[in-house]
Amino acid sequence: MRIGVLTGGGDCPGLNAVIRAVVRKGVSVYGHEFVGFRDGWRGPLEGDTVQLGIRNVRGILPRGGTILGSSRTNPMKIEGGVEKIRENLAASGVDALIAIGGEDTLGVAKQLFERDVKVVGVPKTIDNDLNATDYTFGFDTAVNIATEAIDRLHTTAESHHRALICEVMGRHAGWIALHAGMAGGANVILIPEKPFDIDRVCAYVESRFKTRYAPIVVVAEGAHPIEGQMALQAGELDSFGHVRLGGIGETLAGEIEKRTGKEARTTVLGHIQRGGTPTAFDRVLATRFGLGAIDAVHEGDFGVMVALRGTDIVRAGLDEATRELKTVPIERYREAEVFFG
Amino acid sequence: MRIGVLTGGGDCPGLNAVIRAVVRKGVSVYGHEFVGFRDGWRGPLEGDTVQLGIRNVRGILPRGGTILGSSRTNPMKIEGGVEKIRENLAASGVDALIAIGGEDTLGVAKQLFERDVKVVGVPKTIDNDLNATDYTFGFDTAVNIATEAIDRLHTTAESHHRALICEVMGRHAGWIALHAGMAGGANVILIPEKPFDIDRVCAYVESRFKTRYAPIVVVAEGAHPIEGQMALQAGELDSFGHVRLGGIGETLAGEIEKRTGKEARTTVLGHIQRGGTPTAFDRVLATRFGLGAIDAVHEGDFGVMVALRGTDIVRAGLDEATRELKTVPIERYREAEVFFG
Amino acid sequence: MRIGVLTGGGDCPGLNAVIRAVVRKGVSVYGHEFVGFRDGWRGPLEGDTVQLGIRNVRGILPRGGTILGSSRTNPMKIEGGVEKIRENLAASGVDALIAIGGEDTLGVAKQLFERDVKVVGVPKTIDNDLNATDYTFGFDTAVNIATEAIDRLHTTAESHHRALICEVMGRHAGWIALHAGMAGGANVILIPEKPFDIDRVCAYVESRFKTRYAPIVVVAEGAHPIEGQMALQAGELDSFGHVRLGGIGETLAGEIEKRTGKEARTTVLGHIQRGGTPTAFDRVLATRFGLGAIDAVHEGDFGVMVALRGTDIVRAGLDEATRELKTVPIERYREAEVFFG
Amino acid sequence: MRIGVLTGGGDCPGLNAVIRAVVRKGVSVYGHEFVGFRDGWRGPLEGDTVQLGIRNVRGILPRGGTILGSSRTNPMKIEGGVEKIRENLAASGVDALIAIGGEDTLGVAKQLFERDVKVVGVPKTIDNDLNATDYTFGFDTAVNIATEAIDRLHTTAESHHRALICEVMGRHAGWIALHAGMAGGANVILIPEKPFDIDRVCAYVESRFKTRYAPIVVVAEGAHPIEGQMALQAGELDSFGHVRLGGIGETLAGEIEKRTGKEARTTVLGHIQRGGTPTAFDRVLATRFGLGAIDAVHEGDFGVMVALRGTDIVRAGLDEATRELKTVPIERYREAEVFFG
Repeated sequence: MRIGVLTGGGDCPGLNAVIRAVVRKGVSVYGHEFVGFRDGWRGPLEGDTVQLGIRNVRGILPRGGTILGSSRTNPMKIEGGVEKIRENLAASGVDALIAIGGEDTLGVAKQLFERDVKVVGVPKTIDNDLNATDYTFGFDTAVNIATEAIDRLHTTAESHHRALICEVMGRHAGWIALHAGMAGGANVILIPEKPFDIDRVCAYVESRFKTRYAPIVVVAEGAHPIEGQMALQAGELDSFGHVRLGGIGETLAGEIEKRTGKEARTTVLGHIQRGGTPTAFDRVLATRFGLGAIDAVHEGDFGVMVALRGTDIVRAGLDEATRELKTVPIERYREAEVFFG
Repeated sequence: MRIGVLTGGGDCPGLNAVIRAVVRKGVSVYGHEFVGFRDGWRGPLEGDTVQLGIRNVRGILPRGGTILGSSRTNPMKIEGGVEKIRENLAASGVDALIAIGGEDTLGVAKQLFERDVKVVGVPKTIDNDLNATDYTFGFDTAVNIATEAIDRLHTTAESHHRALICEVMGRHAGWIALHAGMAGGANVILIPEKPFDIDRVCAYVESRFKTRYAPIVVVAEGAHPIEGQMALQAGELDSFGHVRLGGIGETLAGEIEKRTGKEARTTVLGHIQRGGTPTAFDRVLATRFGLGAIDAVHEGDFGVMVALRGTDIVRAGLDEATRELKTVPIERYREAEVFFG
Repeated sequence: MRIGVLTGGGDCPGLNAVIRAVVRKGVSVYGHEFVGFRDGWRGPLEGDTVQLGIRNVRGILPRGGTILGSSRTNPMKIEGGVEKIRENLAASGVDALIAIGGEDTLGVAKQLFERDVKVVGVPKTIDNDLNATDYTFGFDTAVNIATEAIDRLHTTAESHHRALICEVMGRHAGWIALHAGMAGGANVILIPEKPFDIDRVCAYVESRFKTRYAPIVVVAEGAHPIEGQMALQAGELDSFGHVRLGGIGETLAGEIEKRTGKEARTTVLGHIQRGGTPTAFDRVLATRFGLGAIDAVHEGDFGVMVALRGTDIVRAGLDEATRELKTVPIERYREAEVFFG
Repeated sequence: MRIGVLTGGGDCPGLNAVIRAVVRKGVSVYGHEFVGFRDGWRGPLEGDTVQLGIRNVRGILPRGGTILGSSRTNPMKIEGGVEKIRENLAASGVDALIAIGGEDTLGVAKQLFERDVKVVGVPKTIDNDLNATDYTFGFDTAVNIATEAIDRLHTTAESHHRALICEVMGRHAGWIALHAGMAGGANVILIPEKPFDIDRVCAYVESRFKTRYAPIVVVAEGAHPIEGQMALQAGELDSFGHVRLGGIGETLAGEIEKRTGKEARTTVLGHIQRGGTPTAFDRVLATRFGLGAIDAVHEGDFGVMVALRGTDIVRAGLDEATRELKTVPIERYREAEVFFG
């Protein structure tokens, strides 16, 4: 068999580990051949391929990013996109496709599968918000980076009697904030799933100032106050449609200063959460996902994605994975609340 | 209620996170009081206690080790040990006990429970070999430390065209070797569950020397060859004039040198695997275990230990946990074998 | 003798190591007594002291921040401030003072010395911009944190074919940017000492896009374009007088996008650069500074600060240290330029 | 010009950074050509070369080890070795040679220079024991790795009321032990330069057991007791039933157990000290050494090596560098002694 591989969406530590596992087992155990598509769906759309053999995947296990490149190109939004992909797959002699990506990438995979393309998905989201799997790789790395940053902020906050706000990733789900905040001993954790009451946040901050420890507020980028509180100021949009300035972290710091009279500072972790070498957990998970994906392809079990349940790698339908976002359940947030204030 | 807390057995990153969670929730949510027992079962045996309130647990979340101290004292092996413990618990006014420890500590807990002591267990083993829970805290930290060490060994091995053997913890179960070896891109992984064939190990080593990468062998301290192989004794000189001493790592290096003619060196990671600050994964798991344990005590559900199943904290009978060791299943080892050689 | 100790200005990894060394040697070798002043000059101004003995400094060596607290209180700007300090020192029975801090703190120390207060300084600036010493502690830690962040940004930038801008500390001197940029393999480094030409920056960025690597721009917060280029938009000032939004990093990313048509993203490292455990280099340097400071006090050599010259701890006049800022010399910048583009 | 480059001796984090800087500046600024020799002096001895251009050095800055390979081959010990090298250099059209290595490698370089080979040296020793330079790259990385290990040992030692011995590199000079021990808050530091008195070591260990902290002994592999002390031989059983084998660390642990009755354990850090990614300090130093070396070659200043003096890169005669070892002066050891016990 000749199998195509692509990686789509935002990058994530562990992508290379998946690619390596797919190719190593595919070649040495099953005797398949591989072709890499560049930059997510742009690759098969434009027929942009790259060699992908044992040699190409040597040494990439500990490397962040993806040797195949990535993009947010969505063939569903392109006139005749799906047809073009089918043609290019055929032209490259590709029998089956392994698509590694998040909600969007897997959504395209699902639609291609419905149009008879043999495809297996590998779930990828640094935010851990994909349904049908206990964890996705990259998440543990992001949480460790954020936790280490929070560890560092503690001593600064204490020395200066300041509140420090740490803004982490998580537009729609607060998993990184929840885990990093819990691991970092945050004073308050704010997540998109639960609009916050700025008065309670300030009360927590003030009560912590009475100890010799200082308040650390961990806030997911998608968190927001309950309606009517805090006039959020949207920054200008840049030419790529992203907001340039002033996320929730900055707004919150301003509000805390205004209400408590204490100095507050914000650190926005940004891209360092998704780059660099993966943790051991993510390397093992990504490797096992890769092995599971090539097994599924070899067995002819298409239209599925691999998933983690407990300690087992299982398969789930692509539709299950993409049906809805996995958000933080209220019980998990309540666990963390024990440590607030 | 007045609740005693102790930590027994070898130390493990995350013990302090458990203690903190128990006390924080116990005091602020349930209004209980706490007393710490020093050095595992020695504490209640000798009535050696220490204050344990909110103040004592501030700032300990990121610290390795245990503020309560530990020991391997086993009251079952002491004439009248159990009676003494019951008397001392009564004398300290302790209504219930939270015992944090491994197979031995939980075994004692089980026997105390059978003699009407109200006890809840928290599983702890850096080796991850306790039944009834998907993971134990400390394991992820150990695996990350070992993986980082293996990452470092790669470049040295390559530069010197040497085989490097990395001996990790795991007397009876090869979990650390399996995960760190998989995460570190080991050339061969040797675990106690599967006696190894030295000829195959050497074949793997030699085949790797043909690439520009060098062989890294990850070996659990309890790994051993199939019967009859490898008779090199401690104290012999090897072909490079080095004294070959100690554990399986050293013996293996000597054997590889003798059989392949290539230089081989061993690093024994030892105690650095179990010390220092826990990873985010272990901090979250340990914190959730602590919350689960104080919930069980508060609900009067004794004779159980907390456990992780998937992403949920559940309870399991103390007997289930201590009945047998959780070793590496052969399927998991086969996954790793794909990357050997 | 009874010796006061204080830490002023922004916090810096290594402050606690200085305090520990001062007290350990002062008590055990010289038999002096110590008193800690809280929050920089606020302590002696208001007579706010804290116990400072061997016990108080145990275990603080690896901890970031300062157990004495810090502030930017400047007694020179307070009517009768110097007199008040002299009175409070006398009232606390303090014979001599060790002041650990940057330009401002040492400037005050110098003026107190001129008014007959026995004072020895220890230089502290994370920016490494203090004259008369080769390095200050905290700088190496900041550079390592920034370098690790840049390492992480590389893989993200490559995977997404994006320019990534990393904004580091350095309002008046570009030392952190220079060292972290050189260590991190930056494509361009921008420092306050040398106004940049936005056209050349964009040319470097574009030339890097032609390789399979992606451009990483490291920019000190105080860097700025040559006159007339790029309308810098000042953010609003908050109630503490700090600019809230939109530093040079964000402005630069917008400009690069506009001019090259390539996506650009900014990460502002912020406070994580100055918190947390110090590197070994900083722990050794801070410890040796502390030993040198207590030696100077013991020998009665006041009005000086300790300094590093090569591998030696020497003494320099407080005036020499505070006369002018140590900026990056053009030759050092030229070294780095070899790797631009 | 056509310039050869080789790396000899034990590997060291930063070797690749030197090679990269040499090639980047050599090609892009000076327009020279390069050829790599494999495995130290074996390369020019056997005429074993490898391509070395801008492309080959891309991405290697953060990588440990050496892309050129290394060996301990000494042409001086080979009949006609020097002649062969001169012939092979001529055959490869090499006009000048940059030799990166320690005492042995630079000793050969010196002798080649005396026989009219145009050679510039770059000092390399992880042990920091080369004369004529303040620091060598690799040393800071080793010290940080050892310090992190010591940090981890503290919590284990405290929890178990054990002495922990950490054996670090340093056969003839105790620099790593001194710096890591000072940075790690060691209870005692033992170095080759100063034979230790086992009675005093045990007294320090016992006095630390009286605090809640535990003794950490940092010992250089080349440290040894004063004459006549400690006769425990490899292979004996100690009082805890453990076989005591191997280096000074193990011997010392046995002796401490026997004399104090307290449990003692040893960790031998070994090869992890010299592998993996370099610290920022080492990357900058190695890069500047590389730039300095190619400048010397370009200027025709041969028979020298580059060196660090304060913050400057200077040149020193190859003979000065190799004349004697730079050991730890007694004043530096005395600084550390303040913290013993």
